[in-house]
Amino acid sequence: MKEIRIGLLGLGTVGSGVVKLLRKNEDLLFSRVGVPLVLKKAADIDVSRAKALDLTDDIFTRNATEVVNDPAIDIVLELIGGQSVAKELILRAIKNGKHVVSANKALLANQGRSLFKAANDSGIDLAFEPSVGGCMPIIKLIRESLVANRINRISGILNGTCNYILSKITEENISFEAALAQAQANGFAEADPTMDIEGFDTAHKLAILNSLAYGMTINFQDIYIEGISKITPADIRFADQFGYRIKLLAISKKKEDAVETRVHPTMIPIQNILSSVKGSLNAVTVTGDAVGDILLSGHGAGMIPTASAVISDIVDIARNLLNGIKRRVPLLSFQTDYVREIPVVPMKEISSHYYIRFAASDRPGVLSKISGILGNHNISIKSVQQKGRKLEGTVPIVMLTHMANEAAIQEALSEITRLDVIDNQPALIRIEDEARKD
Amino acid sequence: MKEIRIGLLGLGTVGSGVVKLLRKNEDLLFSRVGVPLVLKKAADIDVSRAKALDLTDDIFTRNATEVVNDPAIDIVLELIGGQSVAKELILRAIKNGKHVVSANKALLANQGRSLFKAANDSGIDLAFEPSVGGCMPIIKLIRESLVANRINRISGILNGTCNYILSKITEENISFEAALAQAQANGFAEADPTMDIEGFDTAHKLAILNSLAYGMTINFQDIYIEGISKITPADIRFADQFGYRIKLLAISKKKEDAVETRVHPTMIPIQNILSSVKGSLNAVTVTGDAVGDILLSGHGAGMIPTASAVISDIVDIARNLLNGIKRRVPLLSFQTDYVREIPVVPMKEISSHYYIRFAASDRPGVLSKISGILGNHNISIKSVQQKGRKLEGTVPIVMLTHMANEAAIQEALSEITRLDVIDNQPALIRIEDEARKD
Repeated sequence: MKEIRIGLLGLGTVGSGVVKLLRKNEDLLFSRVGVPLVLKKAADIDVSRAKALDLTDDIFTRNATEVVNDPAIDIVLELIGGQSVAKELILRAIKNGKHVVSANKALLANQGRSLFKAANDSGIDLAFEPSVGGCMPIIKLIRESLVANRINRISGILNGTCNYILSKITEENISFEAALAQAQANGFAEADPTMDIEGFDTAHKLAILNSLAYGMTINFQDIYIEGISKITPADIRFADQFGYRIKLLAISKKKEDAVETRVHPTMIPIQNILSSVKGSLNAVTVTGDAVGDILLSGHGAGMIPTASAVISDIVDIARNLLNGIKRRVPLLSFQTDYVREIPVVPMKEISSHYYIRFAASDRPGVLSKISGILGNHNISIKSVQQKGRKLEGTVPIVMLTHMANEAAIQEALSEITRLDVIDNQPALIRIEDEARKD
Repeated sequence: MKEIRIGLLGLGTVGSGVVKLLRKNEDLLFSRVGVPLVLKKAADIDVSRAKALDLTDDIFTRNATEVVNDPAIDIVLELIGGQSVAKELILRAIKNGKHVVSANKALLANQGRSLFKAANDSGIDLAFEPSVGGCMPIIKLIRESLVANRINRISGILNGTCNYILSKITEENISFEAALAQAQANGFAEADPTMDIEGFDTAHKLAILNSLAYGMTINFQDIYIEGISKITPADIRFADQFGYRIKLLAISKKKEDAVETRVHPTMIPIQNILSSVKGSLNAVTVTGDAVGDILLSGHGAGMIPTASAVISDIVDIARNLLNGIKRRVPLLSFQTDYVREIPVVPMKEISSHYYIRFAASDRPGVLSKISGILGNHNISIKSVQQKGRKLEGTVPIVMLTHMANEAAIQEALSEITRLDVIDNQPALIRIEDEARKD
């Protein structure tokens, strides 16, 4: 084998980055891999993208099917995004015996089961390092480096847009809307930011990591998801007073033979290293029974960082091809027979510490009513701050609870919200604080 | 191949950890690898260690040579430490066609050239993930995940003992000696802590990382090394006032066709995520031209975390063996022909920002004399703090410099030290602050 022949689908941000990085570091890659990595074909519906990259006519095509059917191609890169066309093309590539690299977390989270099954049935390598955490090698970390570990917990900042927005609110004391507008102006949020700010993108990534960590079939539908659009500067200031930062966290925990898995704004102690991860950076802490906590942090998105992850997957497959082997590492970290359905703990059954902010009328007896209802639901209060100063006509009452059950909290809050002294829905933020044993 | 047969040399902390972790997670490893990893032989001169692990007579031997000569063994783990016997045993194992995993950073840093040459000549895999950073997969990160990156910089906390001691001085405002005594009492420092506190252990690890990152032959002798034994609580307090923390950093930077490489106490901004790495934790930031900064943090030592790294190497080799291949990834990250001598920048030629603390007599004109001499050496001062309060009979004068040349600083300091108004050698700490452009 004198060269590795690559077919690329999609010349968007990541695809263009791959073309650029393959060119820029061509000599470096040769000195590490020993043979050239050659871009044979690149497909996109938009000719202008090919022109911007100076792709010649023998390489560029508007017909993606031509790429996946080309017998001269060893590895197909699926960098189109979207679900239906991308899936069809991956399946066709697999059928044609080509190995595939995909950055498509939405597709893998939603339809990974059938894609991995097709790849497994054909003995094909379907690699996906760029789908989670941009340049951070979180897939390789879990699948290879932590191979000797029973993984107990994943806790991560997996969406740069949300982390940028929350960092802005924290540092500049501005509203969510203002921070989002800044993120959009600076290219850290898309025109339609729903997938990011409502937590779906983070949940797609968590679904993939859960599968690798716990040996469970991919289970996006069972992840509890809550976005950051209701976070206010007031909550961030109160969090700070209690020694916490607010991050959108992907959290999963192995509990006996079940997995707790959720995405929501979370208060974490300021000393927790994840609190130091600012701006658009991503980070993940994985907890294994042998290693304890191990943290990875880096650029979770962006043209060239993500291209770096795509090329690391190309090289992994290339090294197999050069040795005449395939499927050296099981796709989902466990041998196929050991990947199984693992039940997900229903959200109402989880336990957590909670931060609750009520907007109350400035009348006597309010605190007693609230704490009475919480007590009836077996929720015990760790600390209360009742601020004298009014905030939009009401007085904020802020509480931290001891460990409490989610269903109990939700029932208590809906009861409290019906009190005539309470305005609006209370703000509820879950706290992850390993140090707190109460 | 129905099983992978392991021979273990050395039942010290790491070796015992490997035996325990192979047992504890036997079923997990089978579900990931697909065949059993079987400990066939384990050698140590101390029989009591074998007894503590309940190793049976058919497995335990006092004769290490028996292990490396046993035709029934596929992979040899060198976990003895020390240099002469360990080297001989590794070379014998290689000669006998066995793949080797070693945690021996001192050996690899000092004699890696001949060991890697022997492994290369025989096509043997010599794996060494556990030699740097305990459970952190820093070798795999550089060698595989960052394969598409020209690496520009490594900056790391690679010794848990030093980080523990510096954290203690910072948090409890105690002397170096008191912090070292605590570290020894709590098992974070050895009875003879020289290798750790004087920076040699950190430099061994940096020598290995430099080779992988830059494609240079291992060059331990050329690393500048300075330990932490002269760090005082006063310097840590002054650092805090300037917005810095003091860490023992391993630093290397690629400069055109040369490498700057040094180990010394370093001030880094409090916002730098490495500042949040406390206690005995390790962390490394690697900077690549595609990914920017990527950070890895975790337990850099300890029985079971290091055993996790040993087993990840075993599994990597096992997956090659199961596929009938070897040497899938070049040992030193680059194809053999591309590993070359790269000159090291002499320490006197580097540039840095500096923190300097003088112990001066409380007389007028001292500051003018000091700044005059610095000016004569082209060193410009960024800020000065002259504290009124005496410290051990003298007044501390603390300075931060703009970017300055190391030789100039050293010459200026020796001139200043000869002034009769200056007591003792000034304290000099280099500052790494990417944000400072002055």
